[in-house]
Amino acid sequence: MQLKIGIIGLGRIGNIHYNNIRYHIPEAEVVMVSDVDKNRMPDDVPYGDAGTLIGHPDVEAVVICSPTDTHANYVAQCAREGKHVFCEKPLDLSLARIRETLAVVRQHDIQLMLGFNRRFDANFMKLKALVDEGKIGDVQLVKITSRDPAPPSVDYLKSSGGLFLDMTIHDFDMARYVMGKEVKEVYAAASALTGGAVAEADDIDTAVVTLKFEDGSMAVIDNSRKAVYGYDQRLEVFGSKGMAHVENNKPDTHMYYNGEGAASALPLHFFMERYTMSYLTEMKAFVKSVQGKQPVPVGGGDGLKATMLAVAAQQSVERNTPVTLVGENVVHQ
Amino acid sequence: MQLKIGIIGLGRIGNIHYNNIRYHIPEAEVVMVSDVDKNRMPDDVPYGDAGTLIGHPDVEAVVICSPTDTHANYVAQCAREGKHVFCEKPLDLSLARIRETLAVVRQHDIQLMLGFNRRFDANFMKLKALVDEGKIGDVQLVKITSRDPAPPSVDYLKSSGGLFLDMTIHDFDMARYVMGKEVKEVYAAASALTGGAVAEADDIDTAVVTLKFEDGSMAVIDNSRKAVYGYDQRLEVFGSKGMAHVENNKPDTHMYYNGEGAASALPLHFFMERYTMSYLTEMKAFVKSVQGKQPVPVGGGDGLKATMLAVAAQQSVERNTPVTLVGENVVHQ
Amino acid sequence: MQLKIGIIGLGRIGNIHYNNIRYHIPEAEVVMVSDVDKNRMPDDVPYGDAGTLIGHPDVEAVVICSPTDTHANYVAQCAREGKHVFCEKPLDLSLARIRETLAVVRQHDIQLMLGFNRRFDANFMKLKALVDEGKIGDVQLVKITSRDPAPPSVDYLKSSGGLFLDMTIHDFDMARYVMGKEVKEVYAAASALTGGAVAEADDIDTAVVTLKFEDGSMAVIDNSRKAVYGYDQRLEVFGSKGMAHVENNKPDTHMYYNGEGAASALPLHFFMERYTMSYLTEMKAFVKSVQGKQPVPVGGGDGLKATMLAVAAQQSVERNTPVTLVGENVVHQ
Amino acid sequence: MQLKIGIIGLGRIGNIHYNNIRYHIPEAEVVMVSDVDKNRMPDDVPYGDAGTLIGHPDVEAVVICSPTDTHANYVAQCAREGKHVFCEKPLDLSLARIRETLAVVRQHDIQLMLGFNRRFDANFMKLKALVDEGKIGDVQLVKITSRDPAPPSVDYLKSSGGLFLDMTIHDFDMARYVMGKEVKEVYAAASALTGGAVAEADDIDTAVVTLKFEDGSMAVIDNSRKAVYGYDQRLEVFGSKGMAHVENNKPDTHMYYNGEGAASALPLHFFMERYTMSYLTEMKAFVKSVQGKQPVPVGGGDGLKATMLAVAAQQSVERNTPVTLVGENVVHQ
Repeated sequence: MQLKIGIIGLGRIGNIHYNNIRYHIPEAEVVMVSDVDKNRMPDDVPYGDAGTLIGHPDVEAVVICSPTDTHANYVAQCAREGKHVFCEKPLDLSLARIRETLAVVRQHDIQLMLGFNRRFDANFMKLKALVDEGKIGDVQLVKITSRDPAPPSVDYLKSSGGLFLDMTIHDFDMARYVMGKEVKEVYAAASALTGGAVAEADDIDTAVVTLKFEDGSMAVIDNSRKAVYGYDQRLEVFGSKGMAHVENNKPDTHMYYNGEGAASALPLHFFMERYTMSYLTEMKAFVKSVQGKQPVPVGGGDGLKATMLAVAAQQSVERNTPVTLVGENVVHQ
Repeated sequence: MQLKIGIIGLGRIGNIHYNNIRYHIPEAEVVMVSDVDKNRMPDDVPYGDAGTLIGHPDVEAVVICSPTDTHANYVAQCAREGKHVFCEKPLDLSLARIRETLAVVRQHDIQLMLGFNRRFDANFMKLKALVDEGKIGDVQLVKITSRDPAPPSVDYLKSSGGLFLDMTIHDFDMARYVMGKEVKEVYAAASALTGGAVAEADDIDTAVVTLKFEDGSMAVIDNSRKAVYGYDQRLEVFGSKGMAHVENNKPDTHMYYNGEGAASALPLHFFMERYTMSYLTEMKAFVKSVQGKQPVPVGGGDGLKATMLAVAAQQSVERNTPVTLVGENVVHQ
Repeated sequence: MQLKIGIIGLGRIGNIHYNNIRYHIPEAEVVMVSDVDKNRMPDDVPYGDAGTLIGHPDVEAVVICSPTDTHANYVAQCAREGKHVFCEKPLDLSLARIRETLAVVRQHDIQLMLGFNRRFDANFMKLKALVDEGKIGDVQLVKITSRDPAPPSVDYLKSSGGLFLDMTIHDFDMARYVMGKEVKEVYAAASALTGGAVAEADDIDTAVVTLKFEDGSMAVIDNSRKAVYGYDQRLEVFGSKGMAHVENNKPDTHMYYNGEGAASALPLHFFMERYTMSYLTEMKAFVKSVQGKQPVPVGGGDGLKATMLAVAAQQSVERNTPVTLVGENVVHQ
Repeated sequence: MQLKIGIIGLGRIGNIHYNNIRYHIPEAEVVMVSDVDKNRMPDDVPYGDAGTLIGHPDVEAVVICSPTDTHANYVAQCAREGKHVFCEKPLDLSLARIRETLAVVRQHDIQLMLGFNRRFDANFMKLKALVDEGKIGDVQLVKITSRDPAPPSVDYLKSSGGLFLDMTIHDFDMARYVMGKEVKEVYAAASALTGGAVAEADDIDTAVVTLKFEDGSMAVIDNSRKAVYGYDQRLEVFGSKGMAHVENNKPDTHMYYNGEGAASALPLHFFMERYTMSYLTEMKAFVKSVQGKQPVPVGGGDGLKATMLAVAAQQSVERNTPVTLVGENVVHQ
């Protein structure tokens, strides 16, 4: 039996999930779609507004790709209707709102998976596998480089929650995922160096974040909103038995030499090229989880934790001091 | 308007083309399929035997993926019915038969494209682009490494036409494609070194082939039926202004270091992983060509030339001497 | 005329300088040597104790490679005798002592160069050149990885001044050198994770240090006393116009593939192999500076600044807070 | 006791050996030098013409770096005087002359080593070690790329014996060395494509040479006199258990990325930079061999075999046919 999925939001990401489910996941089918822009609708799939879709008896699971400020409401509605949910990150920009929503989810027998798609990237999965196989030994340091080719628009930036909630949140999740441990302290240094849209939005664009884990191991993340050479996504794990890192993916493997120098291709420029396969692998995992074949790989708690780290980083910058996390709370010194 | 395609043969390659057309080429649709094994048929596409399919008024173009010994017949039938053809390589193992078939094709107003898919690989296209842009200058040497992870079955080997017609034929086409010039002389050295299936089939498995082009430039191809580390597909072009090479594609970019050494992933092991995208790009090119948007990128003459080179290489090994090509003929010294 | 050099201390580093001057720098000669261990003395070079050597009329310049706690005294004596000095880092572990010594040096007309040899490494010089040529644009982030293959002895550790003064001091100098700007704030996170000698010496072995520069740009350094795969020395610069990084040097370029995987050589394991050429280039620069052909590339002020950063990092760990630098002072918040 | 060495010829190569022995091989000393150009003589080493040097009682071993046409005479004189010899390649351009000289050498109790320095390069030694350790299994194919950055002068070319005797001879030796087997057949394809000095000297500049070994394994060498991007020296071995290759050495490991692309350093441009260490390792091996600590690693027979391969390649081009080698003779088909 195919899993019957409804999709809310057919923008850039929603469309990726739509195509993946429709053409590449035979175990599932898209039975209904919803979007405020009706021009985005495919001809041959029934349309319903979000409420209708969530409540429709044909829909077993809902994929939420609408704007961030709708996520928490839709997730709670799905939970109440007994529908499984895949929700794009973040669940919400407010920790309180996330906690309330997760409380609702816990009261109903549904699966909730969050869209931290990078966990499903072949490079990062390989590093995680090396850690899990013991090849790294006790992990002592994780290093994450995450840089965008260009900042988004001023409008986007203003409603994004800022660098940490919008961009670093992926790296916070990655650090927890690779380490398999919880962070106890966050220190963030940040600057606005690229001008342009970021300056206009009065945001930061460059950050170095240090995470201390319970056992003294550490992670360090560096971010930029503007890497002129493209999308830069690298990761390194260092431990008592070894070290491993992954480099960027490139569109081809050529190397060209002439009298002036040697040149290769640049990294894949856009997140949709870089993470094409991770979106598919992620959605396959969601389908399997709903079908009871594996536990949900990224749950609501993971979303809460990543958001807590983003909030802590924000406070660390504001107060210029490390910020402590205790359980599910951000604690100031 | 979508191009209406019929597919003959739904084995490994036929299935790739079927899925590519159905899910990834909106400009075309599969309207009929044919295979001797009816279990391979999809439920929702009409079935017809090869003759019916070729003659069916709904079919505008035919994709031929059936066994090699059926290719020439089907191509000629398609030509007579006025149907455009995409035919997997080789057109036939006999030069005479290829010439006859191409003569029939020329008498009818159809497009014929041959499935030398490697021309559509991102790595090789990049090298070709560097040549075309003049970055290499006058090309003086092309080097091709092409090694399979393991030999095919004895049965396959016996009907394959031998290493040169079965495997090197791709490299012969690649050499002509990258060089953009014609070969005037072939010398091939070959051995049987891997034992097993190849020995049983009384074939060769290891070869070094030197091609001399009209202007004194050269190409050298090395082949093996058995590379224990996987599928090895590399290319280098060297000329008066520069040199470029492409390396193998790997499943991930990790590098792992411990006290014993540093390790990375092996090349993608199987031709279907390595050339996934090239099959799609190739079929898109066929659809565009039939729709008159571009000339056919790989025509019947290309198939004839590659086969001539394979036959010449075979004769070179048998006579242990270089073999000359004059126009469309193989000439012994 | 050859520059007449006396060398104090013929241990590991002193011996490198001795051989470099004797065999590879025709513009200089070793006219006298000094070491507490007379067995280390070469047969054919006059011996003198440190005081004699510094005061000897034949000696124009002194290379100081004796233990750290003798550096300041010898430098001051050299200054008073009008002898130019090349002194291994650090000048001293105490900021006050360094300041006093530099005050003495300033009162005499001599050249003082400090042995931050990594500035003369081909890889790091290339990155610095890219920065100076404007290829990076405004530098926004420098990342330094510096890991030793194994911790030194407990005795060494106890008198070393700790990780920051002994090991990170090179990286502090490198960050200032590449950036060409001064640090205004330091935050250091550190742990003891490797056990063994470091635990016995009650020291730290793993650190992540964030530096904020005057203009909002940043540097991040990660250190470990124990990288089981060898000596790890990498650097990356990121800016408004581009990014560049350098990888480790390896003893050979081989790549080996078999059915299990693909393997390459490990990085050069020992600092004396890794930095062989940098020691020679450094000493050539000293000779040229004394001969008035170029300014001293690494002066006493550079030693003071690097030590200040180490002291600030130490205080940052102790107080778990960022520490500010104002001019030549470390200021607590 | 130090080995007492006399050097004949202090040109480019002679000077390398002079400095290596004098400054880097404590087990040997240079006791006499000889050169037709007296300006090249060092001040503090006795001078003697070639005959005097060879006959001088202080000289135990002679390093011959004079022009090729003097080699055979000097080697024979050394043999008669009982002096060990290190002779730069080639021993002579004539096979008959080489055979005569080796016959003289065999009548005297001396060591003769030939200067195939590439056997002592770290990259190539690593590949040889992998072969010897069985990591490659049965070697089935060796691939050698050897390209010079620019052709030598017309005068040099005219007296060089041609591409095969001057340049490929190193690769012939390398193929035999790595394979550890003898060649039974040679086929060479060659062209003149670079114009300039090579055209003026009426020589060839581009070649692809196929070697068949006794057991059916093969080697393929490609050469060019003019690679605009620098000195290109690569090697690959392929066998039943694995494959290994070595890449060019570069002056630094930097990689630079901007909006236009990604760039690295070019290979080391000049043979004296590329093979600096191999010359030293080679001379150390000679000293050890004379002192009886190891067998001579490259003997007169190796020089004869490499020259035979060069002569056979030359004949293969002239006759456009493979040429057979039987024992120590070149046999035409």
